[in-house]
Amino acid sequence: MNQAHSNKGILIVTCTDQPGVNAAVTQFLFQQQANITQSDQFSTDSHGGTLFMRVEFELADLARRLPELTESFRPVAERFSMNWGIRDAGERKKLAIFVSKEDHCLQDLLIRWRIGELPADIAMVVSNHPDLKSIVEPFDIPFHHVPVTKETRLEAEQIHLDLLEGKVDTVILARYMQIMPSRMIERYRNRMINIHHSFLPAFIGGKPYQQAFDRGVKLIGATAHYVTEELDEGPIIEQDIQRVDHRAHVQDLKRIGRDIERIVLARAIQWHLNDQVFLNGNKTVVFGS
Amino acid sequence: MNQAHSNKGILIVTCTDQPGVNAAVTQFLFQQQANITQSDQFSTDSHGGTLFMRVEFELADLARRLPELTESFRPVAERFSMNWGIRDAGERKKLAIFVSKEDHCLQDLLIRWRIGELPADIAMVVSNHPDLKSIVEPFDIPFHHVPVTKETRLEAEQIHLDLLEGKVDTVILARYMQIMPSRMIERYRNRMINIHHSFLPAFIGGKPYQQAFDRGVKLIGATAHYVTEELDEGPIIEQDIQRVDHRAHVQDLKRIGRDIERIVLARAIQWHLNDQVFLNGNKTVVFGS
Amino acid sequence: MNQAHSNKGILIVTCTDQPGVNAAVTQFLFQQQANITQSDQFSTDSHGGTLFMRVEFELADLARRLPELTESFRPVAERFSMNWGIRDAGERKKLAIFVSKEDHCLQDLLIRWRIGELPADIAMVVSNHPDLKSIVEPFDIPFHHVPVTKETRLEAEQIHLDLLEGKVDTVILARYMQIMPSRMIERYRNRMINIHHSFLPAFIGGKPYQQAFDRGVKLIGATAHYVTEELDEGPIIEQDIQRVDHRAHVQDLKRIGRDIERIVLARAIQWHLNDQVFLNGNKTVVFGS
Amino acid sequence: MNQAHSNKGILIVTCTDQPGVNAAVTQFLFQQQANITQSDQFSTDSHGGTLFMRVEFELADLARRLPELTESFRPVAERFSMNWGIRDAGERKKLAIFVSKEDHCLQDLLIRWRIGELPADIAMVVSNHPDLKSIVEPFDIPFHHVPVTKETRLEAEQIHLDLLEGKVDTVILARYMQIMPSRMIERYRNRMINIHHSFLPAFIGGKPYQQAFDRGVKLIGATAHYVTEELDEGPIIEQDIQRVDHRAHVQDLKRIGRDIERIVLARAIQWHLNDQVFLNGNKTVVFGS
Repeated sequence: MNQAHSNKGILIVTCTDQPGVNAAVTQFLFQQQANITQSDQFSTDSHGGTLFMRVEFELADLARRLPELTESFRPVAERFSMNWGIRDAGERKKLAIFVSKEDHCLQDLLIRWRIGELPADIAMVVSNHPDLKSIVEPFDIPFHHVPVTKETRLEAEQIHLDLLEGKVDTVILARYMQIMPSRMIERYRNRMINIHHSFLPAFIGGKPYQQAFDRGVKLIGATAHYVTEELDEGPIIEQDIQRVDHRAHVQDLKRIGRDIERIVLARAIQWHLNDQVFLNGNKTVVFGS
Repeated sequence: MNQAHSNKGILIVTCTDQPGVNAAVTQFLFQQQANITQSDQFSTDSHGGTLFMRVEFELADLARRLPELTESFRPVAERFSMNWGIRDAGERKKLAIFVSKEDHCLQDLLIRWRIGELPADIAMVVSNHPDLKSIVEPFDIPFHHVPVTKETRLEAEQIHLDLLEGKVDTVILARYMQIMPSRMIERYRNRMINIHHSFLPAFIGGKPYQQAFDRGVKLIGATAHYVTEELDEGPIIEQDIQRVDHRAHVQDLKRIGRDIERIVLARAIQWHLNDQVFLNGNKTVVFGS
Repeated sequence: MNQAHSNKGILIVTCTDQPGVNAAVTQFLFQQQANITQSDQFSTDSHGGTLFMRVEFELADLARRLPELTESFRPVAERFSMNWGIRDAGERKKLAIFVSKEDHCLQDLLIRWRIGELPADIAMVVSNHPDLKSIVEPFDIPFHHVPVTKETRLEAEQIHLDLLEGKVDTVILARYMQIMPSRMIERYRNRMINIHHSFLPAFIGGKPYQQAFDRGVKLIGATAHYVTEELDEGPIIEQDIQRVDHRAHVQDLKRIGRDIERIVLARAIQWHLNDQVFLNGNKTVVFGS
Repeated sequence: MNQAHSNKGILIVTCTDQPGVNAAVTQFLFQQQANITQSDQFSTDSHGGTLFMRVEFELADLARRLPELTESFRPVAERFSMNWGIRDAGERKKLAIFVSKEDHCLQDLLIRWRIGELPADIAMVVSNHPDLKSIVEPFDIPFHHVPVTKETRLEAEQIHLDLLEGKVDTVILARYMQIMPSRMIERYRNRMINIHHSFLPAFIGGKPYQQAFDRGVKLIGATAHYVTEELDEGPIIEQDIQRVDHRAHVQDLKRIGRDIERIVLARAIQWHLNDQVFLNGNKTVVFGS
């Protein structure tokens, strides 16, 4: 998963499962003299279900040949009515990270980015509070403070949309404690990832650690998911848990949970950036995780 | 946790936290020449919260001295208004295992019992179906087939109560797919353990694996809890999970889940049998887990 | 992974990675009107490394067409110098389970087999002790007691070879506490699975739980691996662990370990039976685990 | 485990297990009007084994009364030949963090320290390379660059000892890629914690991720331990693992491992700082983990 390889491409396909798709795709890549280095495929049902395919390949001079390659694939894609894309694996996605006051997920992402774990550019950090500005500044990343109140929600949304326009293709809600309005969700559909601090669908909504404490669960968790109009109901990308016991107060759950949140969010982002995540209705297919 | 030790006793205490409880209990055991081998203590709040204490001790000739020991402790207990008990750790609890048609938890418990992992006697297996009789018979354990329909629910309950009376102190619902009526719950309160095939409070109610499949979770789980009048809402004793991915169909979730259910139920029963589980409202304190 | 599907085939390929393999295989299956339902592929290095490929497909009338299909694939295989195989996924492998005195893995496998989790026939159980005969008999599986001493090791091996000849294609060492002689290893190379009761390569050799106790590890584990001439050094198929603490004596580690051993061995066998495990030198590639 | 409580004390005891220890300790605290809020106790063997005890208590005006309390306990301690200590839980230990070039553990500790997760003062960061200076400086923590070569090992040790003298009571080796000389080990015995990037005792020594890759393990791990003269053989405080598969190259193992290392090291430090870790020969007893 090293992104430093040049000449490495990724082809992703979603279509109705039907005979010949696999053969057509691999035949195409062979004819283009692309060398398949990894291939994943999943079908919900071989009789008319949905087929998900992800192929990594090497091709000399990929950057220059990409437009032509894309054009040549179009007839194959049309034959099978594919949703599809081909891209240079070295091309970096552009992130906006939204935060409020809690900094552990932000800190974690900044460090991963600095040591090269996140194959992306962080275009900006956006917050409804000014608190985390000093954390972002040493990284030479723009920090935008956009206050949000109930009354200014829609104006704030417009500011967000303007800020991101043309500069961002993926939005990360790294403990951003505001509900996203619908135009943002629509614009960044399947490209906006939230970290929820519970093992969904347990403890939907506010104060999940308090809810977990009250219920007396023996494991707490976190969930990274794409944001949809339904709060905490979007497609789950990744989840993980940690064991806790009766000694843990709510603040202990929060402390333990911070580690789970950081890791779950980082994994989800990495998979998303590598095009390993496919939408299957309100669920995800995650290849190679 | 070897139960074969003779002369090993267990003292359990629940009371309002207040100065001197610990000193009084340990002083008492010292005066009785009991040697404390393990001691656990937890307080929800040192200012008027609830204190839970469990002490394992060795005392020569325990079996004979137990009545006198119990009598001697009474004044200490009354001084602090304790809920308490002292018992011989070698004394075995008597279980009834309730099953329907699924046999994996039953099989698992029977094998653990045969190889000495369950420090208890299995007094009987009770089922609303005759299917699992042949599995139980080689173990020389009585199998009682008590059919249950909506109409006969209360008669069946009476039969259950009569069957268990005097023979059973702990009831295990090992995938018994019937809702327990209230008299049974009342009679075996805090002594009836159910295994629920989800990571509660996610997927309460029927078909949790189907629910988990539909929601697209990345981890599935199981939960052992004491049975209360509220379905799947009783105090949780133990939970565990296993990672799954998009390839898993509902029947795969069921297969993977069977292993989690077996292990979670077995752990909960072992802890219950060793008096490691204390009730704290609708939650549990589990020592030494 | 439901094996009940009729007309389901599995094609496995190992060969030097080179352009066109994928295209040739998928093209072949398409021409045969086989419908690919799942496909996995891994290459150690796209420039002259080893390529591993596993394709599940559906093909009407597979049982009858299998010989012809196999014949037709031969030229493709020869072009790329493949190690390969095509088989009917419904065809069941034939197991011999070797045990000594510990029964937990055997019990577990017998139960999984009875409830249909193991898509295989258990042809026989072989033991160097008579103790577990009574456990096997109710399942109507032949039990062969073959005593083994230092002096009779080679005669015992001959008896084993004769017993298995023509009846068994996969050998499971389910806590068989004897070192396998070399002819058995040679005959069942990559088809003989052992469960070792530690997290290899930690605690190679005898008494691993005692070793783990002495070292004070905080997690104990188990490892399923193919048997080679080097003790406990064969290719690892699966491993798992469980957390333990300072309270656990050796017998507690053994008890906790039994659950890990059972589950790790069962997973490894299931993957092996489904042709999900490929040899890569002294390592394994496990698809879809 | 919130350290902000004032008037909270911790009493730790290690002694030969014998009747009356528990009673004497609790009686003492009761007479001092201290209120026990948590108590843990473990004995390796109730007949002449070693007893470990840790008691948290509340006592009004603790800071002022601590010397007197300590003096009063001395006779109790002498009666049972205890190793013991009483301290104010609010008193913060003073850390030196040793690093080389890898920054993930350092970054993680700095962030945890800033958000209040580490109840300690970081007195200094020491490194044999200048690289991480810029990471430390924004935190207003002194950074000491002390180059180490084979020839200057002993001079460097003297510089280390001088730097730390009187300023540091606990040393953290946060991926410090140098072997500690014996005087440092002796001076900070049981107070120097190292993070080793494998699941010890597997893969002792250099390049453990390469070793793990070569062996083909299915889980990788990290181990926090006290440093002793025997490389990677000191008492284990904490371990954890993460699942990996055949796709993971060495650099993927390193990336995944970084998260395990960070969390394992942080847990070990937190437990050490809270006096939850006791030495039991070359093993540890960890209370309340």
